[in-house]
Amino acid sequence: MSGVIQVGVVGATGYTGVELLRLLARHPEVRLRTVTSRGEAGRAVAEVFPSLRGFVDLRYEAPETERLAACDLVFFATPNGTAMEMAPALLDAGVRVIDLAADFRLRDAAEWARWYGREHACPGLLAEAVYGLPEVARERIRTARLVANPGCYPTAVQLGFLPLLEAGVVDPAWLVADCKSGVSGAGRGARVDILLAEAADSMKAYAVAGHRHWPEIRQGLAAAAGGEVGLTFVPHLAPMIRGIHATLYARLTARDVDLQELYASRYAGEPFVDVMPAGSHPETRSVRGANVCRIAVHRPGGGDTVVVCAVIDNLVKGAAGQAVQNMNLMFGLDERAGLDQPALMP
Amino acid sequence: MSGVIQVGVVGATGYTGVELLRLLARHPEVRLRTVTSRGEAGRAVAEVFPSLRGFVDLRYEAPETERLAACDLVFFATPNGTAMEMAPALLDAGVRVIDLAADFRLRDAAEWARWYGREHACPGLLAEAVYGLPEVARERIRTARLVANPGCYPTAVQLGFLPLLEAGVVDPAWLVADCKSGVSGAGRGARVDILLAEAADSMKAYAVAGHRHWPEIRQGLAAAAGGEVGLTFVPHLAPMIRGIHATLYARLTARDVDLQELYASRYAGEPFVDVMPAGSHPETRSVRGANVCRIAVHRPGGGDTVVVCAVIDNLVKGAAGQAVQNMNLMFGLDERAGLDQPALMP
Amino acid sequence: MSGVIQVGVVGATGYTGVELLRLLARHPEVRLRTVTSRGEAGRAVAEVFPSLRGFVDLRYEAPETERLAACDLVFFATPNGTAMEMAPALLDAGVRVIDLAADFRLRDAAEWARWYGREHACPGLLAEAVYGLPEVARERIRTARLVANPGCYPTAVQLGFLPLLEAGVVDPAWLVADCKSGVSGAGRGARVDILLAEAADSMKAYAVAGHRHWPEIRQGLAAAAGGEVGLTFVPHLAPMIRGIHATLYARLTARDVDLQELYASRYAGEPFVDVMPAGSHPETRSVRGANVCRIAVHRPGGGDTVVVCAVIDNLVKGAAGQAVQNMNLMFGLDERAGLDQPALMP
Amino acid sequence: MSGVIQVGVVGATGYTGVELLRLLARHPEVRLRTVTSRGEAGRAVAEVFPSLRGFVDLRYEAPETERLAACDLVFFATPNGTAMEMAPALLDAGVRVIDLAADFRLRDAAEWARWYGREHACPGLLAEAVYGLPEVARERIRTARLVANPGCYPTAVQLGFLPLLEAGVVDPAWLVADCKSGVSGAGRGARVDILLAEAADSMKAYAVAGHRHWPEIRQGLAAAAGGEVGLTFVPHLAPMIRGIHATLYARLTARDVDLQELYASRYAGEPFVDVMPAGSHPETRSVRGANVCRIAVHRPGGGDTVVVCAVIDNLVKGAAGQAVQNMNLMFGLDERAGLDQPALMP
Repeated sequence: MSGVIQVGVVGATGYTGVELLRLLARHPEVRLRTVTSRGEAGRAVAEVFPSLRGFVDLRYEAPETERLAACDLVFFATPNGTAMEMAPALLDAGVRVIDLAADFRLRDAAEWARWYGREHACPGLLAEAVYGLPEVARERIRTARLVANPGCYPTAVQLGFLPLLEAGVVDPAWLVADCKSGVSGAGRGARVDILLAEAADSMKAYAVAGHRHWPEIRQGLAAAAGGEVGLTFVPHLAPMIRGIHATLYARLTARDVDLQELYASRYAGEPFVDVMPAGSHPETRSVRGANVCRIAVHRPGGGDTVVVCAVIDNLVKGAAGQAVQNMNLMFGLDERAGLDQPALMP
Repeated sequence: MSGVIQVGVVGATGYTGVELLRLLARHPEVRLRTVTSRGEAGRAVAEVFPSLRGFVDLRYEAPETERLAACDLVFFATPNGTAMEMAPALLDAGVRVIDLAADFRLRDAAEWARWYGREHACPGLLAEAVYGLPEVARERIRTARLVANPGCYPTAVQLGFLPLLEAGVVDPAWLVADCKSGVSGAGRGARVDILLAEAADSMKAYAVAGHRHWPEIRQGLAAAAGGEVGLTFVPHLAPMIRGIHATLYARLTARDVDLQELYASRYAGEPFVDVMPAGSHPETRSVRGANVCRIAVHRPGGGDTVVVCAVIDNLVKGAAGQAVQNMNLMFGLDERAGLDQPALMP
Repeated sequence: MSGVIQVGVVGATGYTGVELLRLLARHPEVRLRTVTSRGEAGRAVAEVFPSLRGFVDLRYEAPETERLAACDLVFFATPNGTAMEMAPALLDAGVRVIDLAADFRLRDAAEWARWYGREHACPGLLAEAVYGLPEVARERIRTARLVANPGCYPTAVQLGFLPLLEAGVVDPAWLVADCKSGVSGAGRGARVDILLAEAADSMKAYAVAGHRHWPEIRQGLAAAAGGEVGLTFVPHLAPMIRGIHATLYARLTARDVDLQELYASRYAGEPFVDVMPAGSHPETRSVRGANVCRIAVHRPGGGDTVVVCAVIDNLVKGAAGQAVQNMNLMFGLDERAGLDQPALMP
Repeated sequence: MSGVIQVGVVGATGYTGVELLRLLARHPEVRLRTVTSRGEAGRAVAEVFPSLRGFVDLRYEAPETERLAACDLVFFATPNGTAMEMAPALLDAGVRVIDLAADFRLRDAAEWARWYGREHACPGLLAEAVYGLPEVARERIRTARLVANPGCYPTAVQLGFLPLLEAGVVDPAWLVADCKSGVSGAGRGARVDILLAEAADSMKAYAVAGHRHWPEIRQGLAAAAGGEVGLTFVPHLAPMIRGIHATLYARLTARDVDLQELYASRYAGEPFVDVMPAGSHPETRSVRGANVCRIAVHRPGGGDTVVVCAVIDNLVKGAAGQAVQNMNLMFGLDERAGLDQPALMP
């Protein structure tokens, strides 16, 4: 790869967008060229986000295809439904695209329409889009024009379940994913239920009847299992800023499986999956700000239930960091470029 | 019941102890007579806990059986292993006892020894002790001399699962309890792992391999199910002060069961169990400081998995409030006496 | 006083409103008759606030003068500007009024207009309205038709400075009030800056150039000092739900003043001001949910600077609790009625 | 400068120590050679701090002078009193030393003894030690053998007051520093008062009668003012992990001073002091994890009081980051090396 990558970020006022700016600002091979926001157009990025003072000199622009078409790569950190409107023109112009929203995550346009409440604007691209979980699709990502960056819960749940399903050692019909997320996962929009005075010092489940990440997770697990899976997925809102803790339950069908070895070998060589020693309890803070998924696998009492704990930073390995990882793959860079920092602890 | 109940509290410097003082200080039928602490003997209670200034005038005393024997009722808010040493003498003196620790919760002395790492000091009392979950044992509690106040997780998990197991509508072999607790559940001892700078803004599971509340829960659920149960119990530390959110998973075996009606009828008339409307997501803050368990039952996608959300304040319905509820029953008072306050929200 | 007080609450969906409902629901002499909200009219109060399930059976109504006119007392827990529109008609109908907003706090209509950005709707009532700080105006409150309930910061700052200014022992020209507030003080409206993901784990000052509570505080301190005061007031947003910690600085002009004795005697007999022992550091959690202001006075190094720490729960002694205290005075009840509960700690 | 710097860290199990490891692990010119801890000797660093898995491969060693003497530079991240015992031997061996504790911060051995409760072990070194605030002593730091890294509060307070005092535009006799610190400032020792269940959702002042950082701040401010200063310093514990917000009050004596310009010119070219635009309110989260002090200066109502808000991350610019900055100066590196990362926000 010769030369610096010219990058645009569409919708960089939400948490995934500003996290992308944080990572890209120090990426050795990237030049941030265009940062857009309808609401903040004209303001300096560093005025809206003082944490970027001295690191990002740009002003927000209104999102215009012509400006973006001059980039090598455009990230969409927009609400669902924006990328599918703008991406086709950019792809036609030879720009590669990574969508951090959900527009290209489901392969079935009808299912997409059912969960997202509208028709898909470019269903023809769903087959081409590569689901950007490098631990599953690394080679296809390298050559992709269009990458669908996975959701935060789907990243943690898939990485946690994959070794079991690929090895066929659990009953795929009876999977439970109990997930706890920090509040930044709900976005930076003004809403009463995520005010500090509402969400601090409290926990609750939400969307038990059905969450948009359920079909995304199910699609990935079914591919790993080679057939349908039965998945119960319950997300919870936890009183913290960042972090997802996925606690996964499955029923062992195989005897004499060495779970620790299964996970260690599945993720050997993966730069951003850390299989912890047997008996570990990963904390979400151990990945705060870092592009890593830490996993521990347990078998309580030596019984037939497997318990997997997988933690990520929802804004990094669950969003912006994984997007940068995908960019690195797409442009032939070291997969670790710009992502090689330890977590912020405490 | 005529006359005020003379009450002693042993070990009132931990969180369950001071919560007991908060509740007893305003209880209309109680006189706090003796409050003990080895470490703080001689100091005014309100000096150690300024929130009680103007409400509790006593000084901590060293725990002495003679002083305590003058009470009608003694609460033990002590570490495990203290009540079993002191309770026999008090019972002999005609004092009734409620132990908020674990000394009398398991009926099997061998199992107790296995989980608590020592021999039980008075195994003969295990058969007499009444497990103080009023929703199960109300009548036996009324006449009990010795009540084993349930643990915090066991209260939430049992109240959440009981209707399903009593009705026999789920497979008892495959129960999952994923529980999230505020940090006060870990006690008021000086420990690094529960410092604010360690536990805030983070989540983790702990004791996945086995937690002392597991045999306690299993004992209660087996009684409800009329036979052995298979239970996976994973506790998590959540970055909040109070509250337990139990998320329970079971597999329906019955068809055409109306889960909402099942829960509503099971807990009809219960003063401290609140079955919420269908589709609800109870928040732990909705019970902060209040002696209530709020429960919602879900059946995602109309499938064969039941998801129950049960929330309590670990220090109230999970400890001190339930102890006062038991006291009210034991002394023929209105079960709501001293407990009839709404939660503190926000 | 014979008979129960019929009470209406206008605007009971914000934090001061729902806190008022919590307190009034258990007040022994009150019947909650009408609870209004434009936005939630028709919904059950306990549906919006599940913490009140079992305590408040009412539904929100649209605010109508006729319905409210049947009350003995109406509380306004509304945004600034509402009470001044509705109060005159209610007063004419013989209803007494307590406004928890700012409409009647300033005596000077021109200053009110300057700080609140519009003309006052009934400036003639400003002279009649009694500023409801019982520690200053107890006797006038008893007979008031219209009480202006003090702001949260003004309550803490005035109670903290009063003894010094009344005694004339500090330089009134050089007062500093550095105040830290929990986020509930910013209200329950949807705003980005008070989202958990924005406000948690962080601190900032705000409105350093000028805050609406500044003229209110200055008015009260000037009355105490018997002349103008020079006040610098800097509010800060602290990452907590409830609580104000006011740290006050003044320059001693008197010699040989016993500050501890000064405070103790000034507040002797006050039911809701707690002067702590010399050397104390009051914590906001020691007043969480309780109608009390705890104060400690220091003189570092025996020098000429006085440091006063005053803590309140901004929603209780800083709003709803003080309003109930005022109601008790207005209706000849025990000043402590409905307010006699210890703080929730931890 | 040729070659990598061989670095040792003594006492790397506290928060400043582990933060130093986080920064040094990615520093382009450093090789971490020896990391010591009496308590954890033999354990892998990354086992104690999983956030460092993959970044630090070392095991803790017992602190031995011989091992440390092979380093070019040794950091002491130890409790007060350790560095003064070990530093002389290292200095004799030609090792340069940065002490992050307080052993070399005060120039007067008698004052040190008064505040730290014991005699100083090597008072002769106090005159040689350079107080490591680069914005004041950059040139002397470059050649120092022994650097006393400033305390967290002293860094924020001095950087905030310096322009005013150096310019002589305020009354030095009447300075107030009201400071709010995250709980990590209290260290990683097991203590009840900093448990999450004690310190969360609450605020308090502490050490109002006198704090060890007071003489340190006073010493620095006196040097800037060219004479004695009168300083009132009140630290507060805020319910957050990291961050200090210093709110500073002074009385203007000069007329027609352009405060914004004064600060901008004083800190022009400083790589790690960010003077924000007029009217700003810096948040501590805007410096989370970053080696920067952001400052805003206000003059409320155009009056004679100056209010300065200065924020730092207590573990970075207030400790480990500043230590790395000092190291960079001492070894002729780019002052920004290893420190050029934006804050983690949200």
